[in-house]
Amino acid sequence: MGQKLVYRFGQKTTDGTAAMKDLLGGKGANLAEMANLGLPVPPGFTITTEVCRRFYSAGNRIPDGLKPEVMAALKQVEEEVGATFGDKDNPLLVSIRSGARASMPGMMDTVLNLGLNDQTVEGLSRHSGDDRFAQDSYRRFIQMYSSVVLNLDHADFEDILGGYKEDKGYSSDTELKADDWKAIIARYKEVVEKQTEAPFPQTVEDQLWGAIGAVFKSWNSARANTYRKLNNIPHDWGTAVNVQAMVFGNMGDGSATGVAFTRNPANGERQIFGEFLINAQGEDVVAGIRTPQNLTKKARLDSGSEAPSLEELMPERFVELRKAFETLEKHFHDMQDMEFTIQQGRLWMLQTRNGKRTTAAALKIAVDMAHEGLIDEETAVMRIDPLHLDQLLHPTLDPRAPRELLGTGLPASPGAASGEIVFDATEAERLRAMDRNVILVRIETTPEDIHGMHASEGVLTTRGGMTSHAAVVARGMGKPCVSGAGTIKVNYREQTLTAGNVTLHKGDLITVDGTTGQIFKGAVATVKPSLTGDFATLMGWADKFRRMHVRANAETPEDARHAREFGAEGIGLCRTEHMFFDAERIVAMREMILADREKDRRAALAKILPMQRGDFVDLFEIMTGLPVTIRLLDPPLHEFLPHADHEIEEVAEAMHKNFEVVRSRVSQLHEFNPMLGHRGVRLAVTYPEIAEMQARAIFEAAVEVSHKTGGKPPVAEVMIPLVSTGAEFDLVKERIVAVAEAVSRETGVTVPYMVGTMIELPRAALRAGEIAEHAEFFSFGTNDLTQTTFGISRDDAARFIGEYTAKGIFRQDPFISLDVDGVGELVKIAAERGRKARPGLKLGICGEHGGDPASIAFCDSAGLDYVSCSPFRVPVARLAAAQATIRKSKEKPA
Amino acid sequence: MGQKLVYRFGQKTTDGTAAMKDLLGGKGANLAEMANLGLPVPPGFTITTEVCRRFYSAGNRIPDGLKPEVMAALKQVEEEVGATFGDKDNPLLVSIRSGARASMPGMMDTVLNLGLNDQTVEGLSRHSGDDRFAQDSYRRFIQMYSSVVLNLDHADFEDILGGYKEDKGYSSDTELKADDWKAIIARYKEVVEKQTEAPFPQTVEDQLWGAIGAVFKSWNSARANTYRKLNNIPHDWGTAVNVQAMVFGNMGDGSATGVAFTRNPANGERQIFGEFLINAQGEDVVAGIRTPQNLTKKARLDSGSEAPSLEELMPERFVELRKAFETLEKHFHDMQDMEFTIQQGRLWMLQTRNGKRTTAAALKIAVDMAHEGLIDEETAVMRIDPLHLDQLLHPTLDPRAPRELLGTGLPASPGAASGEIVFDATEAERLRAMDRNVILVRIETTPEDIHGMHASEGVLTTRGGMTSHAAVVARGMGKPCVSGAGTIKVNYREQTLTAGNVTLHKGDLITVDGTTGQIFKGAVATVKPSLTGDFATLMGWADKFRRMHVRANAETPEDARHAREFGAEGIGLCRTEHMFFDAERIVAMREMILADREKDRRAALAKILPMQRGDFVDLFEIMTGLPVTIRLLDPPLHEFLPHADHEIEEVAEAMHKNFEVVRSRVSQLHEFNPMLGHRGVRLAVTYPEIAEMQARAIFEAAVEVSHKTGGKPPVAEVMIPLVSTGAEFDLVKERIVAVAEAVSRETGVTVPYMVGTMIELPRAALRAGEIAEHAEFFSFGTNDLTQTTFGISRDDAARFIGEYTAKGIFRQDPFISLDVDGVGELVKIAAERGRKARPGLKLGICGEHGGDPASIAFCDSAGLDYVSCSPFRVPVARLAAAQATIRKSKEKPA
Repeated sequence: MGQKLVYRFGQKTTDGTAAMKDLLGGKGANLAEMANLGLPVPPGFTITTEVCRRFYSAGNRIPDGLKPEVMAALKQVEEEVGATFGDKDNPLLVSIRSGARASMPGMMDTVLNLGLNDQTVEGLSRHSGDDRFAQDSYRRFIQMYSSVVLNLDHADFEDILGGYKEDKGYSSDTELKADDWKAIIARYKEVVEKQTEAPFPQTVEDQLWGAIGAVFKSWNSARANTYRKLNNIPHDWGTAVNVQAMVFGNMGDGSATGVAFTRNPANGERQIFGEFLINAQGEDVVAGIRTPQNLTKKARLDSGSEAPSLEELMPERFVELRKAFETLEKHFHDMQDMEFTIQQGRLWMLQTRNGKRTTAAALKIAVDMAHEGLIDEETAVMRIDPLHLDQLLHPTLDPRAPRELLGTGLPASPGAASGEIVFDATEAERLRAMDRNVILVRIETTPEDIHGMHASEGVLTTRGGMTSHAAVVARGMGKPCVSGAGTIKVNYREQTLTAGNVTLHKGDLITVDGTTGQIFKGAVATVKPSLTGDFATLMGWADKFRRMHVRANAETPEDARHAREFGAEGIGLCRTEHMFFDAERIVAMREMILADREKDRRAALAKILPMQRGDFVDLFEIMTGLPVTIRLLDPPLHEFLPHADHEIEEVAEAMHKNFEVVRSRVSQLHEFNPMLGHRGVRLAVTYPEIAEMQARAIFEAAVEVSHKTGGKPPVAEVMIPLVSTGAEFDLVKERIVAVAEAVSRETGVTVPYMVGTMIELPRAALRAGEIAEHAEFFSFGTNDLTQTTFGISRDDAARFIGEYTAKGIFRQDPFISLDVDGVGELVKIAAERGRKARPGLKLGICGEHGGDPASIAFCDSAGLDYVSCSPFRVPVARLAAAQATIRKSKEKPA
Repeated sequence: MGQKLVYRFGQKTTDGTAAMKDLLGGKGANLAEMANLGLPVPPGFTITTEVCRRFYSAGNRIPDGLKPEVMAALKQVEEEVGATFGDKDNPLLVSIRSGARASMPGMMDTVLNLGLNDQTVEGLSRHSGDDRFAQDSYRRFIQMYSSVVLNLDHADFEDILGGYKEDKGYSSDTELKADDWKAIIARYKEVVEKQTEAPFPQTVEDQLWGAIGAVFKSWNSARANTYRKLNNIPHDWGTAVNVQAMVFGNMGDGSATGVAFTRNPANGERQIFGEFLINAQGEDVVAGIRTPQNLTKKARLDSGSEAPSLEELMPERFVELRKAFETLEKHFHDMQDMEFTIQQGRLWMLQTRNGKRTTAAALKIAVDMAHEGLIDEETAVMRIDPLHLDQLLHPTLDPRAPRELLGTGLPASPGAASGEIVFDATEAERLRAMDRNVILVRIETTPEDIHGMHASEGVLTTRGGMTSHAAVVARGMGKPCVSGAGTIKVNYREQTLTAGNVTLHKGDLITVDGTTGQIFKGAVATVKPSLTGDFATLMGWADKFRRMHVRANAETPEDARHAREFGAEGIGLCRTEHMFFDAERIVAMREMILADREKDRRAALAKILPMQRGDFVDLFEIMTGLPVTIRLLDPPLHEFLPHADHEIEEVAEAMHKNFEVVRSRVSQLHEFNPMLGHRGVRLAVTYPEIAEMQARAIFEAAVEVSHKTGGKPPVAEVMIPLVSTGAEFDLVKERIVAVAEAVSRETGVTVPYMVGTMIELPRAALRAGEIAEHAEFFSFGTNDLTQTTFGISRDDAARFIGEYTAKGIFRQDPFISLDVDGVGELVKIAAERGRKARPGLKLGICGEHGGDPASIAFCDSAGLDYVSCSPFRVPVARLAAAQATIRKSKEKPA
C-alpha cells in the first residue's frame, strides 16, 4: 500500500513519463510524455495497472484508497479546465479509456462525455451556446454508458432512434434537432429504468466509478482473453484507466479537429501532411461526410483546392501546431501521426504515435532521418520491416488502375503480372516463344511444369498452400504466384477457368497479384519496381551491421545472376534435379531409370554428364569467388516418369520401349509417401553411379572454369541430402572423394571442395555429432525438417493448417516461419553437437525459412554462419540478418 | 614389458582361467578352464591378445621376448605328450588356431598338423603304423599352410589333386593310397617352390612362426574388418593364438571321435545324446559318409540300431566320458555341446560350449535345471530367447512332412497354415462362411482387406516389408503371414499365382510358413502348439521378476480374449478405426465423410454410435479390472473411401449418391503423403463431432458395463493420436471432458477416465513438458515416431532398407528393433520432460516395438511403465521385460 495509484497529466502537473508504460499503459504514458514536452494536452489522470490487479484480487471491487486519490486528481483537472465535474452551469466532461502495456486495439471499452445528466446537459447547452450539441452529447453518453457499464443491448437504443426517425420521416441523424434528441433521451432513460430496475444514474460520481469498474472488467472479457492468448500477453499485466477532460472541435466556427503526419506517409517526403474540418468532431474527419481541408497552403495549392488551409484560416494556431509537430518528431525520433482539436480557438493535442507508412516512405524517412542526424544508421536499419521490403522488389498493381476481382487465393509469391490464360506448361513455353505473355493456370503444379512456369509471367493454382510446389518454385523464380485459390474451378478438358458465374477461356487475359493473393479479370496495369538510391543506401548500412552471410537458392544462370544483383554472397542450394526436367535431359534420365542393370544406367548417365557439367560451369562463372553448394539428386525417381496411361504411352513410344515395361516400372516405383520414400542419400546408396556422375560433373566443371579464368578453381560444396546416420553419409562421401581424386589425376588440377550434408530429418539433428565427424558443413533443410518434426506434409497441410492458425494452435504456419520451440530446438541441438564434434563447422539454412525475418533472427541466435533463400528474398534476408545482429547487441548488458 | 605373453594349459600346468577371455580369447580361456577341471585336454598354450596388439604396433612383426616364452611352453607340451616337435621318430604335431574375445566364426585362419616335413612324416608313419594316414596328413598340412601362411591360391592345389584322380581314374579321395599321396605331395611342393621361389619350409620352427604371424595378420583381413564393423567389435581387441598338440581319432580301431550333448537338444530330456565313429576324424562325423553310432546303450536300443554303442564298445572310456560330461554341465551350469577324441585308447576332450537347442528344449532344460538346483529361477528366465518363444505359440510345419517349395518372402508373422488360394477379401469371407480354409493372396493389403484377413488361415503378399499393412495386421491377429514374396506373381484378372514355371489357380492349395517366410505348394502337415507346464512355470517366474506391465494391442473381442489368455494386463492400444471397416459401418462412415455440413456428419455419426458403444462394452467386459486404452480415429478419411472408378461407382450406387459427387470428394481428399496428412488429432480438431461421438461411445459403454456388473465402472484411457503441440491436445481434451460430464449428468454415473496422448512425432517428444501439463498419460507410438524421425515411410522402405542393413548402415531394420540412438533419445527426452511437468506420468509404448525384446529392454531402461504388443507377442514381452529387469539388477554395483 502507500504506493501511488493515480498519475496526473496536464499543463500544471504531470507525474508520469513515457518510460512508465508498465504502470500507466501505453496511452497514459504517452499523454504524460506529451504534457512533459509542454504540449497542450487536455488535463486528466491515469489510474495504474496495479489498481487493476488489486481490483481483481479484491473480487472485482474498486480497491480502498483509490477514491481520495482520484478525487484529488479530478480537482486539479477542474482547476486547469476551469469547469467543475457535475456543475450545472459549466460542467466538466471526461472520457474514460482503457490503456494496457501492449496495444489491444478494439478489445476494451471506452466511455465519452461522462459527467452529463439532466442538469449538467443544460449547463453544457448554455456554455456552448449549442443546445443540439449538448442534447446529442447527452444521448450518446447514455447509449455508450448503458452498453459499456450497464451491459444493456446496444440494439435496443438503435431501435428507438430508428423508430423515431421513421415516425418523423427523417432519413439522417443530421435532421434531428435539439428537441428530437430530448424526446429520444426520455425514451432511452425509460429503457434503462425498465431493464435495470433503476433510473439512469444522475450522480456524476456514480457514473465515474461505474465506468472505471467497467474498464477494469473489460480486461477480463472473453474477447480480450482470446486476444491475449493469441498474442501471448500475460493476463496479470492488467489495464490502466485514463480519465481525461473532454474537448470539442464542434463548438462553432472557432473550433476544428484534424489529423496530421509529420512527413508524407505515402512517399516519405518531409512535409506536413494532414487534414482538418471546421466545427466538427474527430469521427467526422474519418467518416468522410464533409470533404476535409488541407493543413498547409502548399498542399492546398498542390491539390488545387479552393477551401482555405488551416495555415491560412488560423495562422496562429497553425504555427502553434507546427511547433508541436516538430517537438514531437524530434522527441520520438520518428514520423508522428497525431490527432488535434481546436476548441473555441484553443489548440489541444489529443494523441501522437509513430505513423504508419508505405514501405517506400519508410525507406525514405529512415534514410532522411539518418542523414538529418535525427537517428543513427543502426536505428534506420531497424525501422524497415524486412517482410515489407519485398514490395519494392516486384511489380505492383497500379493503385489507380480499374480492376474486376475474380477471387482470392494465397499470396504465394509476391508481385503482380498479367497475361493470357494457359493451362499447360508446354503450351506456355510455345506461346512465350512467340513473345506472348502468359499466366500458367494449374490445379497444382509438379516438377514437370517448371519449364512452363519459367515461360510464364505468373502462376495461379487452385490447390496447395504457401509452400506447395508452385509457391516454392515461383518464389525461387521471383515470379508472382497465387496458390490454393479454391473458389476457382479449372477444367483442363474444356480449357476453362470458372469463378462464380464468370467463365474464362484459354487465351483470355487475367492478372494475378501474388502480394495480396487476388486474381483479376483482364490486364490490370502494374508499376515497375525502382530500386532507388535510398534502397541501396539502407542495404549498405544493413550489410555493415549483419554477422550472417546471405546466399541464394539458385540453379539456373538467370536465377544466379538475379541473386548476385540482389547481393547474394554465394549459392546456398543448387537443386540439381531441376536440371533434369529439360526436354532433352529427361529422356536420358528416363532411360537411366528404366534400365535394369548398373551398366545401362551408367550409359544413360554418361549422356547427362556433359550437360550437367555445363550447368555447373555457368554457375561457377557467375559466382566467381563465392561458394556454391550443390545438392545431389534429391527427389524419388518416379518424379521423372509420367503417371497417366496416355503419357506413359507417349514416353514409351518416344523411347522405343514397350508400354507394359514402362508402366510396370512406374508402378514398381510408386510410393505411398514419396516425401518419406526412396530419395535423397538413399538414391546415392542404392544407385551410387548417379552420385558419381554428379560429382564428376561438379569437379570437371571446376577444372574447366579454372582453365578458363586461369585462376584458382572455385570451391564447390557438395551436399548430400536426407542423411539420417553417420554411416550413410560416410559411404557416399567416400564415393565422392574417390571421384574427386580421379578427376584430379586425370586433369592434373587439384580441385578444392567440401562434402557436407543437409540436416533435414530429426534423426540427423540428434546424431549431428556422429555425422559431423566426416561432414564438413551442415545446411539445415528446414522445409523437410518441419515436415518430419511435425509429421505434416507441406503438400497436404492446406486442409487443416488454416483451422490450426485460426484456432490459435499454431501462432504462425510453421512452413512460413520456423517453429522455434520444436524444429528450432532440433536446429540448436544439431548446431551444438555438430560443432562439438568439428569445431568451426560451417552452418547454414537453405529451407524456405531462410527468407523469413523471424526465422532469420532465430538462425542468428542459433549461431548459423549463413542463410540461403530465393534470389528475390536476398535483400529481405540481408536486412533481417542485420536487424538480428543489432537486436542482439542491444540485448547484451552494456 | 615383463608381462606374461604365453599361458599354458594341460594336465601338468595351466596358467589361465575362463575369466581371462579378454587376454586369452574365448577358445584359450575355455581350454584352460577344462584343463583346470582336470579334464584330459590335449596340452598346449595361448599367445595373448596383447601380443597381437604389439604385433601390429611393431609393423607386423613378432615382438621381442615372445620366442623364449613360446619355446618354453612348447617344451612342456612335448613332455606331456611324450613327443618332440620336429623329431624324426616321434614328432609332436600342433594346431594353430585364432581365438578372439568375441566369437568371429569363420573369419580367421587355422593351420592343422603343423610340425610335419619330409622327415617327420616318416616318423608319424612309423609311430602310428599307418603310412597312408601320415602322408595324407602331410599333404593336408602343405595345402593348408600354403593357403593360410604363404597366400597361395587354394585352387592350384585342388587342380593337382583333381588332375591326379582323373589320370588314375579315381572318383573319391578314399581310393588314394599312401603312394598316391606321396606323388601329390611332390607336385604340391613344386607349386610352392615355383610360386614362392623357395622350397616348402622344412624347419618346423619356421613353420610355427609363419603360422603364428598369419593368424595375427588374419585379424586385419578385409572380411574380418567388415565383420567387426558390422558387429561393433573394437579393432584393438586383437586375437589370441592357440598352439595345441594334435590328437587323432583315426589311429586304428582303438581310436574314435565323437560329439555329445549333456541333454537332448531337440526336446530337452535329461539324457546323454551323441554320436561317434571308430577310427575316424572329427570331420567324418559331420560329413556323414559313414553312419555314426550311438553313445549310450539306451539310445542304441531306442533307435533299433545294431552297431554297438560306445558304452558297450569301450565301457571304461564311456564312464570317463560321462564323468567329464557331468563335470562340465555342473561347472558351466548349462547343457554342453562337446567334442572328444579317443586316440589309441586315450580320451581327449577337445572342446565344450553351451549347446544350441530348440526352444522347446531350452524351456524344459531351464525349468529342469532350476528344479535340480543347478541354476536359480532368474537364470532360468534368462536362458530363453524371447524371440524364439514365438515358435511355441503358433502351429509349425511338421518337420517330417514332405513339401514342395514355391518361393520365399519375408517371415512377417509366425506360424504355418494351409488353405485354398483366394485373391479377394470378400471371397475369403464367403468361403470361410462355408467352413473352407483359405489363404488370402494379395499383391498388398489395405484396411479394406481386414475382414478377409480375419476369415483366412494365413496371408501371402508379394509386396511390402516386415511392417507393411499385411504384416502388422497379421501379427496383431496372430495369423501366419509371408509378405513381400517378390518372385511370386499375382494376376487378379486371371486369378492365378505364378512362381517360376508353376502356376496355381484360385482354389488350389498352398501352405505359408510365416516363421521362415517359405511358401509351399499343396497342404503341408502342421503341428499344433502345446503350452506345456514348463511354459507356464517359466512365464510365472518371469512375471515375478519383471517391473514393466505388459498389455496388448487389440480391438476385437477375439483378440482381447487371446490377449488375456496370453497374460496381457490390459489393452494398451485399441485402434478404433478397425471397427469402421465392417460392411454395415463403412456405409455410415462414408455418409459421414461425404456430408458437406456438420449437421449431416452428426446424423451419420449417430448411426455409428450404438455400434461403437457395443464394441467398447465387449472390450470392457473382457478386460474387467484392467485398463483399456482407446485411441480416437487415426487414419485419414480417404482410407474409408474407394479409389478406383468402378469401386466409386458401386459405392455411389449403394449410397444413392451421384458418381461425380463421390469421385470429387475422393479426389478432394487425396493426399500426396497420407502418413503426414489430415489424420489423428487433426481430424478431431477439424471435425470435433467425430471425437465427440467416440468419447460418448466410450463413456456410455463404461456406464453400461458398470450397470451390468453392478460394480465400479472400468477406467477408460482415452488416447488422442498424432499430437504435436500442447494447444491441440488441450482443445480436444476439453471436448472429451465435456462429453464425459454430459454422460455423467445424463446417466447419473460418474465414469472414471484419463485423457492422454500418443507420442509419435518428434515435436511431441520435444514438447512433452507442455503436452504433459494436461495429458494424463503418454503412449509412445514408435512406428510413426520411427517414420518421422528417420523420414522413412514403412510402406515404402522395402526398396532400400535391405541394402541399408546389408551395407551395415542400419544394424537392424529400425521398424523391427527400436533405434535406440535416435528414436530412443526422443523417447527418453519425452519421458523426462513429461514426468518433470507431471510427476508419475504413466508411460507406455504401443508401437510394433512393444513386442521386440531389444526394444523392450530399452523401454525398461527408459523407465516406461508398460509395453503393449500384439496378443501373440504378450508372452514374448513378459519374458523380455523380466530379462530386462534382471539384467539391470545385475548391472548395479552389488
